[in-house]
Amino acid sequence: MRKPRIAILGATGVVGREITKITEELNIEYESIKFLSSARSAGNKINFKGEEYIVEEAKPDSFNNVDIVMASAGASTSKEFAPEIVKRGGLIIDNSSAFRMDKDVPLVIAGVNDEDLRQHKGIIANPNCSTSQLMLVLEPLKKFGIKRLIVSTYQAVSGAGLAAINELREDTIANLEGKSFENKCFKKPISFNVIPQIDVFCENGYTKEEMKVVNETRKILHLDENTLISCTAARVPVFNGHSEAVDIEFENEITPDVVREILKSSYGVKVIDNPDNYEYPTTRDASGNNPVFAGRIRKNLAFKNGISLWCVADNLRIGAALNTVRICKRVIEMGLY
Amino acid sequence: MRKPRIAILGATGVVGREITKITEELNIEYESIKFLSSARSAGNKINFKGEEYIVEEAKPDSFNNVDIVMASAGASTSKEFAPEIVKRGGLIIDNSSAFRMDKDVPLVIAGVNDEDLRQHKGIIANPNCSTSQLMLVLEPLKKFGIKRLIVSTYQAVSGAGLAAINELREDTIANLEGKSFENKCFKKPISFNVIPQIDVFCENGYTKEEMKVVNETRKILHLDENTLISCTAARVPVFNGHSEAVDIEFENEITPDVVREILKSSYGVKVIDNPDNYEYPTTRDASGNNPVFAGRIRKNLAFKNGISLWCVADNLRIGAALNTVRICKRVIEMGLY
Repeated sequence: MRKPRIAILGATGVVGREITKITEELNIEYESIKFLSSARSAGNKINFKGEEYIVEEAKPDSFNNVDIVMASAGASTSKEFAPEIVKRGGLIIDNSSAFRMDKDVPLVIAGVNDEDLRQHKGIIANPNCSTSQLMLVLEPLKKFGIKRLIVSTYQAVSGAGLAAINELREDTIANLEGKSFENKCFKKPISFNVIPQIDVFCENGYTKEEMKVVNETRKILHLDENTLISCTAARVPVFNGHSEAVDIEFENEITPDVVREILKSSYGVKVIDNPDNYEYPTTRDASGNNPVFAGRIRKNLAFKNGISLWCVADNLRIGAALNTVRICKRVIEMGLY
Repeated sequence: MRKPRIAILGATGVVGREITKITEELNIEYESIKFLSSARSAGNKINFKGEEYIVEEAKPDSFNNVDIVMASAGASTSKEFAPEIVKRGGLIIDNSSAFRMDKDVPLVIAGVNDEDLRQHKGIIANPNCSTSQLMLVLEPLKKFGIKRLIVSTYQAVSGAGLAAINELREDTIANLEGKSFENKCFKKPISFNVIPQIDVFCENGYTKEEMKVVNETRKILHLDENTLISCTAARVPVFNGHSEAVDIEFENEITPDVVREILKSSYGVKVIDNPDNYEYPTTRDASGNNPVFAGRIRKNLAFKNGISLWCVADNLRIGAALNTVRICKRVIEMGLY
């Protein structure tokens, strides 16, 4: 099989830049590669494997003779271009929320449910960041029967894009200098504050972000209605790296030691869990790194067969770019393009 | 009954200052008042009701002719002086963790379990900050039968004292300037980070802070072993104001509307809950204010009769100083000194 012709759509965004970097890191093989963006960012230069590429404006015909598109350009752009890509025989690995819950679209975390990739009809969706890191930790524990799952997130601003990163910085400086600052990316001041809203609200009082955790977890792990899931998602003044407090009730008996042993040898997970020596993961450990870090593994005190744990990851990597490129690698290995 | 002779112990600390301010705000009546501290801080001046007071070094004899001591000077100081105060016929309202779980010591949130004050034998304990705000929200809902309670906290640094507040500021500035910074108050960098540890670790893998929420909640609300409680406590880079994601399972049917209506008319609680208009509480609403703010009230998706909510409060006020002074006021009204 010949090597794929690859395009990166949304190449100048926060996640697009990471995709580019990780495509190089994971040594993805390709016949050709191109970098696409909106008209506004076209013309920018990108350094990739020591060569300079000019970012081109994405148009339908940009996808002629392209096998795999790694896309991170927002839901409306994905909705616009996905049919064009599929029509031309290409495959889109999409970071946006546009197709995640479509019945015909596999929602995949590489290393968790790779076999679902075989069902693709031209579109593969990459889960939301807060779901993604959780899946790598939950999948190895699934055999104990997940009965209930309650997640509280502590999410970094990088998930909201470059402007949000700058806003945290500017708001923080203004706050320290006692100056007023008008937030644009966030509905409330983000500096030295916690905002219990990520994405817009649904009719049931949950945010879309929270419902993504509920619905995407169910889809990825193939959990039926017997598993009950609830979530609170909050934004904290952290540049990069999501943290999650996770409470799980299992059908079967399970101990912290068993969880620790299983996760220590699980794909994509690194256990940091020696509280006596102040060893537990924080976002500073995660940012810039590939593993999902798990720690504070202990018996949950409110469930019969319960485990509580703390899970941290670089949301731009495992929650977006890293998983996209890992899916691309699996698609190539499995010959699915 | 004559007005009490009052002393404030630990008057120069973060909480002590708040106690002084709130004693003025709540217009506590007294025959005399004095301000005590360690030798190191003695001699400092304090402005109270427009008059200047000199802070005196606390010694056993400082408590001669004192009826009520409001103390916030740490557990070891409280352990040292409480017997001296009681021996002299005085009453200590103590902010530290020293006596909270003692069978003979009432652990009280004013407005929640005031009747427990009548059991005091000279010592009344003020609960931990993360427990305190939760109690004002849970007590009015207790009649529905609390079956399970899972709390994830997002706690400000002010609870760790003045040095911690300065450390967050200095670490943040250093981080923004790309300089290295050595944290002293915290075991990990606090700027732009989340630390899943508050207080030291217990043998069961929980921190003392987490077990305070578990044990103090049970004691204050008089819950038996049928109520199961679990907690994760994390420190976020916020100067002041704790946030909590709270998941509650009730014995009996309950709806978000019912919870909203009950909390709207509950003592010490203010409901901000109109997500469609981006109205929910953040620490910016809470800091400097007396109420516990509740919002994001919705059906929990993992429990049968479940409610999830977001609860925010000024941890220095309701979590410490405000409750201390409120207890003092109740003790005076009930003639218990």
